[in-house]
Amino acid sequence: MTKLYIGIDLGGTNLKLGLVSPAGDLVAKYSWPTEAHGGPDHVLGRMAQAARHLVREANVGLSDVAAVGVGSPGQLDTKAGVVIFAPNLPGWRNVAVRDRLGEALGRTVVLENDANVAAYGEFRCGAGREVRDMVMLTLGTGVGGGIILGGRLLRGTTDTGAELGHIIIVCGGRPCGCGSRGCLETYTSATAVVARTREGLSAGQTSALASAADFSCKDVFDAAEARDPLASRIVRETAEYLGAGITNVLHTLNPEMVVMTGGMMGAGDGFLESVRQSVRRTALERAWSACTIRWSTLGGDAGILGAALAAEAFDRTGRPA
Amino acid sequence: MTKLYIGIDLGGTNLKLGLVSPAGDLVAKYSWPTEAHGGPDHVLGRMAQAARHLVREANVGLSDVAAVGVGSPGQLDTKAGVVIFAPNLPGWRNVAVRDRLGEALGRTVVLENDANVAAYGEFRCGAGREVRDMVMLTLGTGVGGGIILGGRLLRGTTDTGAELGHIIIVCGGRPCGCGSRGCLETYTSATAVVARTREGLSAGQTSALASAADFSCKDVFDAAEARDPLASRIVRETAEYLGAGITNVLHTLNPEMVVMTGGMMGAGDGFLESVRQSVRRTALERAWSACTIRWSTLGGDAGILGAALAAEAFDRTGRPA
Repeated sequence: MTKLYIGIDLGGTNLKLGLVSPAGDLVAKYSWPTEAHGGPDHVLGRMAQAARHLVREANVGLSDVAAVGVGSPGQLDTKAGVVIFAPNLPGWRNVAVRDRLGEALGRTVVLENDANVAAYGEFRCGAGREVRDMVMLTLGTGVGGGIILGGRLLRGTTDTGAELGHIIIVCGGRPCGCGSRGCLETYTSATAVVARTREGLSAGQTSALASAADFSCKDVFDAAEARDPLASRIVRETAEYLGAGITNVLHTLNPEMVVMTGGMMGAGDGFLESVRQSVRRTALERAWSACTIRWSTLGGDAGILGAALAAEAFDRTGRPA
Repeated sequence: MTKLYIGIDLGGTNLKLGLVSPAGDLVAKYSWPTEAHGGPDHVLGRMAQAARHLVREANVGLSDVAAVGVGSPGQLDTKAGVVIFAPNLPGWRNVAVRDRLGEALGRTVVLENDANVAAYGEFRCGAGREVRDMVMLTLGTGVGGGIILGGRLLRGTTDTGAELGHIIIVCGGRPCGCGSRGCLETYTSATAVVARTREGLSAGQTSALASAADFSCKDVFDAAEARDPLASRIVRETAEYLGAGITNVLHTLNPEMVVMTGGMMGAGDGFLESVRQSVRRTALERAWSACTIRWSTLGGDAGILGAALAAEAFDRTGRPA
């Protein structure tokens, strides 16, 4: 029988699990509330329970699972398999996920950064499956990044590589939650798009959004589509900022592909084309002409697929993905 | 007898050559005008002549040289060993340096980007010899970059990796020679420091430099040392900009070391400390606390050492450095 791998996407709200073949087929999926308020022991127990439930539903046993991959938010020590700190998981300080979950399940467990495994999933069986060097940007509430070079994940010296939400594109610019200013995240996350629109409204700029009690990033993109003046400017500038961030990635890594994912995918192909144009204006031709910029194809499944396939790579090669 | 390697630093003004041992000892050095105005055939002839002169002066023969490395400016195709275009070398379009110099000398030749080999030299036998992941910034007339990951040079898909002078730190900022705006180079090259100071003078800001007919980047740093108000502001802001650029490198690659070299080294240890402080203010602690930021130890010899050692790595492993 083919070996199987479990991928777990550990989120502040939900645990998402996938049972995955070595080829990247998603055999079964399961989602369960994290109940993060219960603390690390409780959540680790739920992860083990959910894994057992997943294999049972798929009519296999844990003995059919060769390894388990966990994609986690927060600061990690992936070599030690430890979550050092995770702002969205109350009480998580130096939690030895790899060893504790490994013991609970009797399986090899690998721990990786959540944005990194999403990029790895997209590389192994999504938009990036034809390339060797790929960068992914996750544009949601925040901005995350993942980097694949020569077919392997770039983690960096202390697991702080690919923190692309915090590259600075406007020195001295908008304050960021990280304590710095002008980070890519403060201009191009869905949250930032709404905040920048609100600032335009406060400054008295004309917009149909002025009458809305509340609005989302999607509402801003919809208003721009309907030629709302403020929303159009915000969307145009968002493409410029994102283009600058991608140009920085191109002039550092010169990858074959940049994949964008997250809630911003709702912005559609017109926005994607604006981002490409922005990159063409700001990057060296030999860099942009070699790089495909596209939306992800796996969407929300990239995390569980990538976590499972990172476990598969470790199981197959004896070294991290 | 120990194998030897020749490193050639192909500059617009001078050809610099070094005869180097596998351990990185500089056995002999030679510098000769490039005579770039003579065009590619003339320059290639001079490179071969200079290489023969170098070994003769060192009392060895070309048969003692296992391979030759060339560090070249401009756009390269390193896989093909071709200089595609080099603005400072008149007439250089698709010049097959590897094959032509290889034929002239009867030796294996490897062609690499000049900033990349300087970084490789610093990695193999300079400031970075204890680390595996290192980034170098060359701060001179322009700003160049070189990246070593896991002990190997990062070239990128089309040899446009590590073009760190053209990462954007001020979206929409100062115009750059590359056609974009807000590139690191337009704020932190020696040329940019002088230009930004001139702009301050034009705006009527108080400075002792106002009486100078002409001044250099070093003069600006000297004036700042003497508490000149304009020069002090320019130097302080240069450290901020450079800090932002380094933070971007840290949040992409999370390296163990960032080495700075070039004319800006004259700015000294006070400036280095200001750059470190700027990085601490803008980077994630897990990134900056893992990264040593320092001046190069090889200075102007990094290029010839790195070119020779890139040839050594190719000779030893059969693959590019």
